[in-house]
Amino acid sequence: MRFFSDNAAPAHPKVLEAIAAANHLDTAYDGDEWSRRLDGAFSDLFGTEVRAFWVTTGTAANCLALAALCPPYRGIICHRDAHIEVDEAGGPGFFTGGAKLMLLDGEGAKLTPDAIEEGCNAIRNDVHQVQPAAISITNATEYGVVYRASEVAAIGAVAKQRGLALHMDGARIANAVASSGESLADVTWRAGVDALSFGFVKNGGLNAEALILFRPELADEVAVRRKRAGHLLSKGRYLGAQLLAMLDGDLWLENARAANSAAQALAAAAPQRLVYPVEANELFLKVTDQEAERLRGLGFDFYDWGPGQIRLVTSWDQQGEALERLAAAIASL
Amino acid sequence: MRFFSDNAAPAHPKVLEAIAAANHLDTAYDGDEWSRRLDGAFSDLFGTEVRAFWVTTGTAANCLALAALCPPYRGIICHRDAHIEVDEAGGPGFFTGGAKLMLLDGEGAKLTPDAIEEGCNAIRNDVHQVQPAAISITNATEYGVVYRASEVAAIGAVAKQRGLALHMDGARIANAVASSGESLADVTWRAGVDALSFGFVKNGGLNAEALILFRPELADEVAVRRKRAGHLLSKGRYLGAQLLAMLDGDLWLENARAANSAAQALAAAAPQRLVYPVEANELFLKVTDQEAERLRGLGFDFYDWGPGQIRLVTSWDQQGEALERLAAAIASL
Amino acid sequence: MRFFSDNAAPAHPKVLEAIAAANHLDTAYDGDEWSRRLDGAFSDLFGTEVRAFWVTTGTAANCLALAALCPPYRGIICHRDAHIEVDEAGGPGFFTGGAKLMLLDGEGAKLTPDAIEEGCNAIRNDVHQVQPAAISITNATEYGVVYRASEVAAIGAVAKQRGLALHMDGARIANAVASSGESLADVTWRAGVDALSFGFVKNGGLNAEALILFRPELADEVAVRRKRAGHLLSKGRYLGAQLLAMLDGDLWLENARAANSAAQALAAAAPQRLVYPVEANELFLKVTDQEAERLRGLGFDFYDWGPGQIRLVTSWDQQGEALERLAAAIASL
Amino acid sequence: MRFFSDNAAPAHPKVLEAIAAANHLDTAYDGDEWSRRLDGAFSDLFGTEVRAFWVTTGTAANCLALAALCPPYRGIICHRDAHIEVDEAGGPGFFTGGAKLMLLDGEGAKLTPDAIEEGCNAIRNDVHQVQPAAISITNATEYGVVYRASEVAAIGAVAKQRGLALHMDGARIANAVASSGESLADVTWRAGVDALSFGFVKNGGLNAEALILFRPELADEVAVRRKRAGHLLSKGRYLGAQLLAMLDGDLWLENARAANSAAQALAAAAPQRLVYPVEANELFLKVTDQEAERLRGLGFDFYDWGPGQIRLVTSWDQQGEALERLAAAIASL
Repeated sequence: MRFFSDNAAPAHPKVLEAIAAANHLDTAYDGDEWSRRLDGAFSDLFGTEVRAFWVTTGTAANCLALAALCPPYRGIICHRDAHIEVDEAGGPGFFTGGAKLMLLDGEGAKLTPDAIEEGCNAIRNDVHQVQPAAISITNATEYGVVYRASEVAAIGAVAKQRGLALHMDGARIANAVASSGESLADVTWRAGVDALSFGFVKNGGLNAEALILFRPELADEVAVRRKRAGHLLSKGRYLGAQLLAMLDGDLWLENARAANSAAQALAAAAPQRLVYPVEANELFLKVTDQEAERLRGLGFDFYDWGPGQIRLVTSWDQQGEALERLAAAIASL
Repeated sequence: MRFFSDNAAPAHPKVLEAIAAANHLDTAYDGDEWSRRLDGAFSDLFGTEVRAFWVTTGTAANCLALAALCPPYRGIICHRDAHIEVDEAGGPGFFTGGAKLMLLDGEGAKLTPDAIEEGCNAIRNDVHQVQPAAISITNATEYGVVYRASEVAAIGAVAKQRGLALHMDGARIANAVASSGESLADVTWRAGVDALSFGFVKNGGLNAEALILFRPELADEVAVRRKRAGHLLSKGRYLGAQLLAMLDGDLWLENARAANSAAQALAAAAPQRLVYPVEANELFLKVTDQEAERLRGLGFDFYDWGPGQIRLVTSWDQQGEALERLAAAIASL
Repeated sequence: MRFFSDNAAPAHPKVLEAIAAANHLDTAYDGDEWSRRLDGAFSDLFGTEVRAFWVTTGTAANCLALAALCPPYRGIICHRDAHIEVDEAGGPGFFTGGAKLMLLDGEGAKLTPDAIEEGCNAIRNDVHQVQPAAISITNATEYGVVYRASEVAAIGAVAKQRGLALHMDGARIANAVASSGESLADVTWRAGVDALSFGFVKNGGLNAEALILFRPELADEVAVRRKRAGHLLSKGRYLGAQLLAMLDGDLWLENARAANSAAQALAAAAPQRLVYPVEANELFLKVTDQEAERLRGLGFDFYDWGPGQIRLVTSWDQQGEALERLAAAIASL
Repeated sequence: MRFFSDNAAPAHPKVLEAIAAANHLDTAYDGDEWSRRLDGAFSDLFGTEVRAFWVTTGTAANCLALAALCPPYRGIICHRDAHIEVDEAGGPGFFTGGAKLMLLDGEGAKLTPDAIEEGCNAIRNDVHQVQPAAISITNATEYGVVYRASEVAAIGAVAKQRGLALHMDGARIANAVASSGESLADVTWRAGVDALSFGFVKNGGLNAEALILFRPELADEVAVRRKRAGHLLSKGRYLGAQLLAMLDGDLWLENARAANSAAQALAAAAPQRLVYPVEANELFLKVTDQEAERLRGLGFDFYDWGPGQIRLVTSWDQQGEALERLAAAIASL
């Protein structure tokens, strides 16, 4: 059974049904009935007026947002292990036209207001050094740790004071919210977030992610940048339909809860092995090479994560017997 | 009934079936069993070794190809009405880092060897003027006209002699081949084409296009550029599956023939109104505003195309009674 | 004697003296006493508050201005024969990150309000087509024709109405003003110009040009872009000193008058051969190949300019016997 | 007396003389007699065939070289304190189109083969992580430490083995060579350096730096990139003349020796205060705030360099009484 990534999980049946239901003639690009409903649906979800764009990858959502928030000649503060720095092949540099990622440290891949202040204070305010224009945080983080609304708000306050925009990479925002029990609104726009990459693909979607702008005035620019980057699909209705299916009846939240619950089940099997607290759907476990091999021998697949660590990611559809077998196997290492 | 774009047509049922059939756990990105079969499947189709990448839009396919074929400081020769110039929001400039589109004229949006020679000869060979690095042609053209293999080969010969790469925007290459009866091989790599944007979405696909590289040594660079541009989908198998479904039993050709046939039926209704010969699935008709209004009043939708012209595009699924009604309506104008 | 370009002329002795006079220890970049005086000196010259930056080339001045006035995803309207299109190796594409030059026709390389309106009206207002953000005009034009203040103001009015910025490439603005007798203020900011590339190198400077911003709020961005493009020289005082020497006693105007006068002397020799009215320091003459050869045989150097035409450019230091010989030679062809 | 930067020093009289001597009519750009002699003069100097380009800043030299050595989608390995990372306003990102600087640590701002190996090994070889294409080292480093030829050669060997290009930022290469007594050839191309930014402005030049390509096949691309970036000056002869004057009689080496000697005089005054060995013309001294204030009170100017440190830079023209007074003042702190 595969635990190396929630990216590999299947799409939820309701998502497939929504795609099939959208398979009739409509207009092209995002003028169709599904795409046109997105602004309203996400505005309702967030309790404020937003502009919502479908895109097909988190990298596209992140980079389009960053390009709108940071000019080519400035920088984006993020964690050294942020996905935009580590795993997007330099996408932010491409989309922004050469803006600089300014890397900070922090436990569990979290940024803190103090670290941001310190990082900013180390930059001379002149034309020789790149000045920051934005902050990007990931929630849940790359290590499966969850920012609480108050933590985001503290970062948002620093951002506001320094005139920096705030972006949230929410590839697993659903898992974060499912974990904290806090509202989407509290952890995003009420905390000062300007743009959110709202992940659905890891959470039961097929190939639709959402870019949410809490500053509607950015929408025109983002729409052009999306087209220009080849991310305006001609049959966009199949993306709009996926997102609406995920919102319908809070399927996104239900799926995230299921994935989180699976992670908790595994975490409970070996609490002493956890590298980080398990707050979303990722587990980082201390295991020896031999132990890792034994788990693989039992049919479980996952990533090695540096020396003596492995990463397990649970998905919306993982429960029942296989999960119990893995938990037992971990417990018995 | 909608004739404004083949982009608005539904996906073919077999494409939806293939997506559903791919909906089980596999690996992420393009390491899955479907994506891994693409190189082989397209190499078989073209009768030569190719590298095939799924992407979700023609703009992505075009621009990734052009970025691999043209450095930022050179230019791409294309027709003044080419899609890359007119309808991609400056995407080529974005992907290449500022390369210049060098616009030529030509009947039916076709380039000719003579026009290319003349265009090149007008450029001083110094560092002040941008030197071309590539040629891009569209087949079928933006006006629904088809390049024969011999015509492409003549352009390919000029390209080779001048050290220029040759790209083909094949958003409707299926319609072109279905029309000419020539082989895909003859009209592409045997004629000197280095990279082909092979369109499927307008032809019954859902959201998968293919970028075909006839120079496999470009594949590593294109793979990185695709990722960097946010076009490496995590659940790529749903794209790979679509393409395989389209290739299976030559569905791509069958669909294109159906669309072409629909266009012929309409063309036959009013041959004297045709602005260009109807060789693929697009018709440009001379009609007055009043005539256009009358057609719309009968429930047919299409684009106005400059003063006194309309554009009709037929799709793989258009046949039968509605088509006959439109043909009759055009004939009786 | 060389008439192929005012770029090849020597620097004025006062410019060399100013460089020598600046050759003592001061601070680096543009913090020195000369550079710091530029804003004030140019504000006095223009009769309004401006921000003035030295740069070493007209291409740098043009492209820095355009990058500040046009985002990567929009376009710059200019004449088909504009220097930024024809002779800057794609610099605007590089500096802007891929913005598109939108080419218009016009007599003598001049844009007109009507041509601009028509060009804009031909662009569909959607995300597929690049929307303009700026207009760039050259004064004097690439064909030595001069925009009057009223003509610029008419273009400025269109720009304002359509929300477009207005840039003037003033590589030969001195010659234009010397010719029209109008004020620098009237032909620039009072006419709606936002940024001016103020040329000095062709007019007796050594290697200092000025970028003048009539919108001071753009200065911070331009300062960073200048540094980032490698155009912030460490010993900037030698550039500042050149510009101040050129402004001192209106040397810039005196030099331009001298060059214009030389051009008039040549133009008077063969008025029937002029392709364009001679309003600045460039002449385009209709001559046969044999006639051109005869002139070259007499020791005069110039560019061939398409079939049957030559271009002569006069410089600030050209007068006296050699000039008279050339005039006589032209007259006697 | 100013010790904050060698950028602030005057130009050498011979450089000014050379500029004055070049002040007669010649051809434009780099077709003049001085510019045309550069390839030969530098080839002689290096004992191998090179291509030499004048530019006006070190940032331009560095970034043009890096753009030729690293595609937009790859990375450049450099020290965390490298000038290209810290003090060029993101220029490398701009010129390369978004390539990533990959930062390593190392004593005295030096890279070592081990650090490079370790850095490379930490990068997963897939499309998600940016792969390096080049290494850039600074000699003398930003802390005034000098790479010996053997050290560069060791880095060159790693570069070659891994298929990476090697760039040297030689803003103070003259000081490095004057210090080590090694040959320019040994410390550059014989050690595997592909491109060198050869600094002259800090060393008595006025505003001419040289970009030296040890791989002549890169020259055409660099020439276009230089033009496109606005760095092809029309009156280039004044730059060519400066460089030739600096090479003439090894003035570059004489000046560097003088600056180094001044640094040694200061270093000898307080060896126990040195943060780094003084090998070129920069000193980093441990002094308290009060001590720094006392030095400033005596009329000496310099940079604070983090808490408890100051930076002094000596120039080619600093000797005699003022220098002795500073040495004495440091000794007596």
